[in-house]
Amino acid sequence: MKKSFASDNNSGVHPEILKAIERANSEHFISYGDDPYTTEAKKLFKEVFGETTETFFFLTGTGSNVSALQAFTNRFQAIICPETAHINVDECGAVEHALGVKLLDVETIEGKLTREKIEKYLHFIGDQHHVQPKILSITQATELGTVYSLKELENLIDFAHKNDLKVHIDGARIANAAVKLNCSLRSLTTDLGIDVLSLGGTKNGMMVGEAVVLFNKSDIDNMPFIRKQNMQLISKMRFISAQFIPYFKDNLWYNNAKQANEMALLLYEKLFSVVPEILVSKPEANALFVKLPKAIASKMQKERFFYTWDETEGIYRFMTSFDMVDDDINDFVGFVISHVN
Amino acid sequence: MKKSFASDNNSGVHPEILKAIERANSEHFISYGDDPYTTEAKKLFKEVFGETTETFFFLTGTGSNVSALQAFTNRFQAIICPETAHINVDECGAVEHALGVKLLDVETIEGKLTREKIEKYLHFIGDQHHVQPKILSITQATELGTVYSLKELENLIDFAHKNDLKVHIDGARIANAAVKLNCSLRSLTTDLGIDVLSLGGTKNGMMVGEAVVLFNKSDIDNMPFIRKQNMQLISKMRFISAQFIPYFKDNLWYNNAKQANEMALLLYEKLFSVVPEILVSKPEANALFVKLPKAIASKMQKERFFYTWDETEGIYRFMTSFDMVDDDINDFVGFVISHVN
Amino acid sequence: MKKSFASDNNSGVHPEILKAIERANSEHFISYGDDPYTTEAKKLFKEVFGETTETFFFLTGTGSNVSALQAFTNRFQAIICPETAHINVDECGAVEHALGVKLLDVETIEGKLTREKIEKYLHFIGDQHHVQPKILSITQATELGTVYSLKELENLIDFAHKNDLKVHIDGARIANAAVKLNCSLRSLTTDLGIDVLSLGGTKNGMMVGEAVVLFNKSDIDNMPFIRKQNMQLISKMRFISAQFIPYFKDNLWYNNAKQANEMALLLYEKLFSVVPEILVSKPEANALFVKLPKAIASKMQKERFFYTWDETEGIYRFMTSFDMVDDDINDFVGFVISHVN
Amino acid sequence: MKKSFASDNNSGVHPEILKAIERANSEHFISYGDDPYTTEAKKLFKEVFGETTETFFFLTGTGSNVSALQAFTNRFQAIICPETAHINVDECGAVEHALGVKLLDVETIEGKLTREKIEKYLHFIGDQHHVQPKILSITQATELGTVYSLKELENLIDFAHKNDLKVHIDGARIANAAVKLNCSLRSLTTDLGIDVLSLGGTKNGMMVGEAVVLFNKSDIDNMPFIRKQNMQLISKMRFISAQFIPYFKDNLWYNNAKQANEMALLLYEKLFSVVPEILVSKPEANALFVKLPKAIASKMQKERFFYTWDETEGIYRFMTSFDMVDDDINDFVGFVISHVN
Repeated sequence: MKKSFASDNNSGVHPEILKAIERANSEHFISYGDDPYTTEAKKLFKEVFGETTETFFFLTGTGSNVSALQAFTNRFQAIICPETAHINVDECGAVEHALGVKLLDVETIEGKLTREKIEKYLHFIGDQHHVQPKILSITQATELGTVYSLKELENLIDFAHKNDLKVHIDGARIANAAVKLNCSLRSLTTDLGIDVLSLGGTKNGMMVGEAVVLFNKSDIDNMPFIRKQNMQLISKMRFISAQFIPYFKDNLWYNNAKQANEMALLLYEKLFSVVPEILVSKPEANALFVKLPKAIASKMQKERFFYTWDETEGIYRFMTSFDMVDDDINDFVGFVISHVN
Repeated sequence: MKKSFASDNNSGVHPEILKAIERANSEHFISYGDDPYTTEAKKLFKEVFGETTETFFFLTGTGSNVSALQAFTNRFQAIICPETAHINVDECGAVEHALGVKLLDVETIEGKLTREKIEKYLHFIGDQHHVQPKILSITQATELGTVYSLKELENLIDFAHKNDLKVHIDGARIANAAVKLNCSLRSLTTDLGIDVLSLGGTKNGMMVGEAVVLFNKSDIDNMPFIRKQNMQLISKMRFISAQFIPYFKDNLWYNNAKQANEMALLLYEKLFSVVPEILVSKPEANALFVKLPKAIASKMQKERFFYTWDETEGIYRFMTSFDMVDDDINDFVGFVISHVN
Repeated sequence: MKKSFASDNNSGVHPEILKAIERANSEHFISYGDDPYTTEAKKLFKEVFGETTETFFFLTGTGSNVSALQAFTNRFQAIICPETAHINVDECGAVEHALGVKLLDVETIEGKLTREKIEKYLHFIGDQHHVQPKILSITQATELGTVYSLKELENLIDFAHKNDLKVHIDGARIANAAVKLNCSLRSLTTDLGIDVLSLGGTKNGMMVGEAVVLFNKSDIDNMPFIRKQNMQLISKMRFISAQFIPYFKDNLWYNNAKQANEMALLLYEKLFSVVPEILVSKPEANALFVKLPKAIASKMQKERFFYTWDETEGIYRFMTSFDMVDDDINDFVGFVISHVN
Repeated sequence: MKKSFASDNNSGVHPEILKAIERANSEHFISYGDDPYTTEAKKLFKEVFGETTETFFFLTGTGSNVSALQAFTNRFQAIICPETAHINVDECGAVEHALGVKLLDVETIEGKLTREKIEKYLHFIGDQHHVQPKILSITQATELGTVYSLKELENLIDFAHKNDLKVHIDGARIANAAVKLNCSLRSLTTDLGIDVLSLGGTKNGMMVGEAVVLFNKSDIDNMPFIRKQNMQLISKMRFISAQFIPYFKDNLWYNNAKQANEMALLLYEKLFSVVPEILVSKPEANALFVKLPKAIASKMQKERFFYTWDETEGIYRFMTSFDMVDDDINDFVGFVISHVN
């Protein structure tokens, strides 16, 4: 069966994740997280991110993003984010709907924030006519498939904290970023002093696996209420938390992301040798952007669906998944070439 | 292993549900519901509730309740509900938080609404100082384990519609009600002319299985946005929708609820023969309420947790699950008697 | 011209208030409160309520109530209030709409809260399924025209603070309460240790005159943003604040309320001597409740409008204003008697 | 006394407006708008905007903007507006706070919207991941002191309606625009087919005078509730509505705006003859923008406050008011020159 390059959430579930779900179906346990699977998963998160962190499990990336931001924003405060951010563009206004706060969106360079562009929102601190920026939301890896270097993140976070902004990382694809940077998840988060992380597992081989990690003890108490209020508290929580056990214990988070990244690079290289003119840039994570004539793209999308990224510019996105192998890439390269050439 | 009588969501997942999840893990499919499992599940819902209905899958009961109510309420309108309603008491204010609307809560008789108590909220229609009631939310089976008769529902719904109120049924345990009334799900909903149903499967043997059923074509268009905005749109939706396939095809919805109801009745009968003085009423669905001295209850709760229903009155709740058998009841009866006598 | 007994807001404006507005129309001043009238008015509030308090001017009672409550409630917290509270019944759901929080309404005895009835909402502290009570809202004088004694308030406030609840007083008619209790405004507020007051002047002879008084320095910083966000920040603020200058300097607050209260008592006494059977209770502030046959009341309302308080019970409300004199009472008594007898 | 060029809301009230307020203080009237002043004012609005329109009085421009937009937006819909819009920048997030909807802000050319920039938000109609644009908000005159021509408005409105967008005009300074265009208020609104107008009078000589005008009968029913819920319903409404009587009857709206506009032009001409290098553009309404060295501007602002418009670019704003005369301009020109030269 042909695999989909539309999104990494078009894949199914890694076999070890499925086995973990099956194992969790053993007997009766108190619901809402008072079960041994949740206890073990939370312990693993502490091993990954540090003993002082606290993790809460969620059902959707939108749910974890909204809740992470709710923990830090009063009603008149605002969230600074890239204009390409998932919270700004792809969540049907969930942040504004649930929190009633404003997103201050910032132009980016290849999906990455820079200090300069953020600064314009810091001119009205203390002025009652203006929302007050409270948190900076960074996506790593970005929606444009780029990856901030540790140094870039350090600079941004330093700048944010100096301006009394908390730092949120939308880590829907943080595993792909860690693989690219060849660093641990902790060095990308805890060690940089961020305040809150939305960690996504669903796009990386899990079934339903999202989490909010809080890095400061003082921020923990409100999160159970925030999660419940945002309709993210599942009764049979063990089936979510159990998925994280092999994810961390068996290094699935790393292996899956590595495979996806490598496949994106392979796709890039294969296309480069034949149709280099359609390539926009070299992939840093698992997304590849190409420029195609509209008529050709439309025809291709009907056969094997993939997303239009920028209709005006004719930019399209191909994504690779954890479960793809060389044959899948070869097959898709054949498909692309047959249309483009 | 001893089973829990704390709640029907302390159980695991029915084996056929788990198999359906495994089967859905076959290959790549477009995310967000454009997959064959979701298509089949939606078709089954049409068979159950009628061709003109439309179903959307959700992740939590709170999420489906909030979204069902959002579809019908403008910002200055209100929701009439029982004071015992899950939306009023157990959802951490999710309705007010997400929708900004008021819940007008009504005293009940054993968890059931009556026209008389609703009427006081209908005195200020058209008066700008008062929120305007727009929807009546009925829970079937109720939080108190009682079940409205079809006649009772018919009367309430008729009264609501005559007063320009839409009708929502919170059907977290609608299967248990249908079993009790020995009727089809359709006769409890479509045939009564209700406007929207939150149908819960999680408490009845599913892993994560909630749905909103809309009964009128004109109400459908907004629901995809409402679901997304309420953080309930899962990318790998097939793993939710697939669970509903055996649920309806193999009659699990009925068999599971029947077993849970019968076990509640068995528990009642066994206790009646030994400690009739602790029984509050005969169960109609799968909840049994008992009156216990506080000291005894506390001791019991430490050994085998169950919920305090009314601290002041000393009322406690025992719930049975789809997976309990006679031995589980006998075992629990022994436990109760050993403490009460 | 006959005066209206429908509400104390049917009156016009006290002549000294109007003069203060005219005086404020002198020249150009920086808008949004940076003007000498606002400075002077804020100074007067400090004299009345104490040096450590801070006052913000508002445009409507609903605006000041919502903003006062916003200052103290996180999104998952709740407000305990009497079921008869203006915020619960008469503000078209403004609190739920603007704040997204739940009102937990409590049965009262003649409009007054009691500890016993509040207690049921304190059982679920720390439980993520339930909204968390954060503030107790007390109305003084109550919507039923009763007045809490200082001792009653002290008990309630003590109880609230012991249970980690902040205390808000809705003082739309606090002047009438102070007159009844023959005490200062400070002894009704600051001296009792409350946290926030909505003080109303509009019903007591002002044109547009509402204020929020904060009693703790730590609560002040957010209020300018809250007021702006709730659409209550007027550009030409001097015309609001200037009204408070004679209100406090010339003792209008006291004289006006005294007159209104006395007229209510006179109305009571005059009716008592002729139609005692229609009187529900002796007025403590400026509202009198009567019981009338529906047909008679309807006829009367068409001639001289007044509000139906309880349609089912046949209770109606007469209110007196600061500008009424004996003749107005005699005239209205004649009107009542001519219909009732 | 020197007049302020900081904003047109630094002025006081036109003497005829004050007289109208005094006249309204005659006797008792039913509150919340059931009085002869409100009746007369609403009649005058019908004369100005047409018999099929309906007007509601408000207390702040933010209140009227939020309520006008609430009337047309479901919770998942969005508002397209200029990035410089008052609703986007100067209302402390009131729209997001009260409505929970997203503002989609568009780059402008001198404060004016163009079709091209709006188009990018129309690409995702029907896609559940994206908020759905529902209303286009146009400011006339703009925050940058420019005025759309009738042809420009016609084009924008036509484009909006063709794309199923409703059209809102933020008319905080619509009088200044009408004077500039030498046209009636009706030709700027009703005749162009807009859906809702926020009309501001406060900046043009009123004390507290804002209104929402609805142009289609079907949109009227909800507005009383929306206004109350947004804390904008004043009890003694006659004192607001009475101000509109001379405003329209004595042509104050026109005369005041004409004077302000002429004074801005005079200020421009006088400065042009001496310091043309500081002028950014010729004023179209009553705002003049100048470019000043930061050190000089800061010194000037300390003596006579005016607003910094763009800190980075060194742009500052001077505003003229209805009550300024030639002497005020001469005086201010002297002040500017003494610092700039």
